[in-house]
Amino acid sequence: MTKFSQELSDTIRSIQDYPKPGIIFRDITTLLGNPRAFRRAVDELVQPYAGLKIDKIAGMEARGFILGGAVAHQLSAGFVPIRKKGKLPHDTVSIAYSLEYGLDEMEMHVDAVQPGEKVILVDDLIATGGTAVGAVQLLRQIGADVVSACFVIDLPDLGGRKKLEALGVDVRTLVEFSGH
Amino acid sequence: MTKFSQELSDTIRSIQDYPKPGIIFRDITTLLGNPRAFRRAVDELVQPYAGLKIDKIAGMEARGFILGGAVAHQLSAGFVPIRKKGKLPHDTVSIAYSLEYGLDEMEMHVDAVQPGEKVILVDDLIATGGTAVGAVQLLRQIGADVVSACFVIDLPDLGGRKKLEALGVDVRTLVEFSGH
Repeated sequence: MTKFSQELSDTIRSIQDYPKPGIIFRDITTLLGNPRAFRRAVDELVQPYAGLKIDKIAGMEARGFILGGAVAHQLSAGFVPIRKKGKLPHDTVSIAYSLEYGLDEMEMHVDAVQPGEKVILVDDLIATGGTAVGAVQLLRQIGADVVSACFVIDLPDLGGRKKLEALGVDVRTLVEFSGH
Repeated sequence: MTKFSQELSDTIRSIQDYPKPGIIFRDITTLLGNPRAFRRAVDELVQPYAGLKIDKIAGMEARGFILGGAVAHQLSAGFVPIRKKGKLPHDTVSIAYSLEYGLDEMEMHVDAVQPGEKVILVDDLIATGGTAVGAVQLLRQIGADVVSACFVIDLPDLGGRKKLEALGVDVRTLVEFSGH
């Protein structure tokens, strides 16, 4: 880990046994609330994409909206919200995705991305990759060129990064935690 | 309305009879997805606060996260999520607030803001002001100095802005729509 990764990692709060016994929840709100850490995290997320002429940032509800909004503004890109079912007011495309237990559905406006537009997916954390894989499939369904996906936190033991890479998506992360 | 306000207003999609007959829903996703409009909206929101040494931006779930994240990054401030009940993993303070029909509850981490810190509240739209008034009260409950509240859209006929101003909060908005 680089010095920067370590500093960033230190601003993330670990909560034991949340949401259930045996799980350590990585709470990113302490990073977001730290002006220096938030600023640097966004700058590091943006850095590989400078000059690539990205059209849209797609962010996943709800924490992905915070980082995604900042990344979109910094890259002068548009922002596309991917939301839980029933939250968007216009015509949508939707996809079922796997959660830890069972399935859920996510939606995007059908006109949110034009065919061929370059899109980067942004979220706070990648774990099993269920939501991220669903989001990539949803974006491709309407013709997006999903250039990359980036996350502040990677939980590599849960395999989400590899699933995204198997779909041909470039993946960028800033800090890693082992275990769940 | 200024030329900028009119341009911004033109990027917002109006959806008739949503979520119910007689209501015109102002859909900000078309503004967010327009790189130029999103960039300028965030820059206009930020502009009055440059040089004020703002500590934290408080954003309301979920659309307030998109704009709030961008505003926080641009001001080099921290970001504080105000969420629906049961979504935050650490100790919280909560407050009931009035929706169009009935009450709901919003929460914030108890350590999200230190007493005396300067905070700006950010959301996409102010209508009746129920959530914004609740958020200001919640922030003050833990000692925040709520310097200002800003919104892209104001629906002045619904009176939210006046309610916030009656609490002594400076309010900034970018575009107005009459009616609901």
